[in-house]
Amino acid sequence: MKTRIAILGYGNLGRGVEAAVAQNDDLELVVVFTRRDPAALRIKTPGVPVLSADKAAEYRDRIDVLILCGGSATDLPVQTPQYAALFNVVDSFDTHAKIPEHFAAADAASKAAGKLSLISCGWDPGLFSLARVYAGAILPVGKDETFWGRGVSQGHSDAIRRIEGVVDARQYTVPIPAAVEAVRRGEQPVLTARDKHLRECWVVAAEGADKARIEREIKTMPYYFDEYDTTVNFISAAELARDHAGLPHGGSVLRSGVTGWEQEHRHTVEYSLKLDSNPEFTGSVLAACARAIHRMHREGMTGCRTILDIPPAYLSPVPAEELRAHFL
Amino acid sequence: MKTRIAILGYGNLGRGVEAAVAQNDDLELVVVFTRRDPAALRIKTPGVPVLSADKAAEYRDRIDVLILCGGSATDLPVQTPQYAALFNVVDSFDTHAKIPEHFAAADAASKAAGKLSLISCGWDPGLFSLARVYAGAILPVGKDETFWGRGVSQGHSDAIRRIEGVVDARQYTVPIPAAVEAVRRGEQPVLTARDKHLRECWVVAAEGADKARIEREIKTMPYYFDEYDTTVNFISAAELARDHAGLPHGGSVLRSGVTGWEQEHRHTVEYSLKLDSNPEFTGSVLAACARAIHRMHREGMTGCRTILDIPPAYLSPVPAEELRAHFL
Repeated sequence: MKTRIAILGYGNLGRGVEAAVAQNDDLELVVVFTRRDPAALRIKTPGVPVLSADKAAEYRDRIDVLILCGGSATDLPVQTPQYAALFNVVDSFDTHAKIPEHFAAADAASKAAGKLSLISCGWDPGLFSLARVYAGAILPVGKDETFWGRGVSQGHSDAIRRIEGVVDARQYTVPIPAAVEAVRRGEQPVLTARDKHLRECWVVAAEGADKARIEREIKTMPYYFDEYDTTVNFISAAELARDHAGLPHGGSVLRSGVTGWEQEHRHTVEYSLKLDSNPEFTGSVLAACARAIHRMHREGMTGCRTILDIPPAYLSPVPAEELRAHFL
Repeated sequence: MKTRIAILGYGNLGRGVEAAVAQNDDLELVVVFTRRDPAALRIKTPGVPVLSADKAAEYRDRIDVLILCGGSATDLPVQTPQYAALFNVVDSFDTHAKIPEHFAAADAASKAAGKLSLISCGWDPGLFSLARVYAGAILPVGKDETFWGRGVSQGHSDAIRRIEGVVDARQYTVPIPAAVEAVRRGEQPVLTARDKHLRECWVVAAEGADKARIEREIKTMPYYFDEYDTTVNFISAAELARDHAGLPHGGSVLRSGVTGWEQEHRHTVEYSLKLDSNPEFTGSVLAACARAIHRMHREGMTGCRTILDIPPAYLSPVPAEELRAHFL
């Protein structure tokens, strides 16, 4: 029996989920819901309808898991509880500070509906959270560091685009090798934001715009850039399209800890990702999570979960006996 | 309420578990069982009795989890089912090929006793298994590679010690950087055993022993050494004690996979460990697993599990709400 999947929102992430579902024989895309005009949308999977999000309720008994592919700022805080009242849902809500309230809203809606929801499962939050929890449980006396990149930060790119005179922009978050190496060696250095990451900006300015002012506004922007060493490069729209069209990302979670009666033994655990396409990888995580949520709901579970609550074997299509025989 | 722990077997691993329990406020060492003369054993934790393994049954209601610290070759195949009939048990059984039958034996014994057991939880099998299952579930179109080391292989060291004229020996398994780098770049190279690891041997020969013969016997030993490039260094017993007393280990699990309709995007997931003390780190994994097994048994679960079945949050002493707020 396949897990019948629906997607809500057909942006980069929705397309990433669609591609991931196509790679998994036990998952089946049933419908894509959109808030745009369904007639204007062409998806890749043959034979799958695109419908207005208003019609979602009609699919109540025809899908097993709805994967929510909206943004964390304004879409998911509304959509996740709303659709959790109708379906098992999975989202990649990534506003770390607001996870507890998002969890509470999804939990209440899912419980009331007898459904199961899984929030905040991408790679951070998601796989990086797992890395932190596993390493922290095993090495209680230690210290974590997370490095992001080299990769495109959509939030920082958007922040640059909001500056007057900027036509388009791409911001790469770049981990600083010396900091990564010191953590990797178990030195547990004390690192500022500036010690850990560089911010590299590629900016298309409007004709006649004051580039010096744009550069100054970027470099002094509070929170986004002022605490970092930032480089600003002006390029043409054609160059941006040619050299910076992708959405690569990645990063590392490192924990260094000590064991022994004199804390004489040092250990380093590192979990690293190098991703050509952030949305396709995140979509692949969401697809595996949908599989797990469907299984757990079939076993009678309701309410909200995070990836920290999912037995790892539930994410895999491989049967338990085969996992024990070949993966353990 | 603390998790009351007992240890069976006070070798390197048992001592590693003892040190790990001491680092965790919610775990408490209650007793150490040994098959040697208890009077001859001095443990590090003040006030904890050392008893003959024959007395274990008397502790049936006084401990929550028994951690089995015997060897995989002959101890655990007998001990795990035997003690699973009395206690919740945790072991680090690492003979990969025999895991299914070990699981079946533990499962039957635990179920009959209304207890819960967890087998094969160290770092490989254990954390490396998790890395393989997570990455495989997310990137179904891809390829895994595991590298071990640089670290001491006890099995290979023992194999050298069995050669006539060898007094003592230490064998390091050393991953070959060019192979690791090619996998890390996502090239998915086809690698032989020789391409992936070197074997580095430090040998103390008996006085007058034929070193050329010892070296030849090591290098041609089937399965252990013949498929590898092996270096043999003869040193004195004093040098071995001075320079090779530790038991460092580690390694990396890498998965490289592709996504997208044309498989045009490449992703690499890497999980790496660098360990000063293999037994203390493995002991730390076992301690966290004991916490999880105690919780799951309190919730009514019985039978055998592996780490692939454990919700990650159960391994951590941090409450679920706090994990969501600060680790996710």
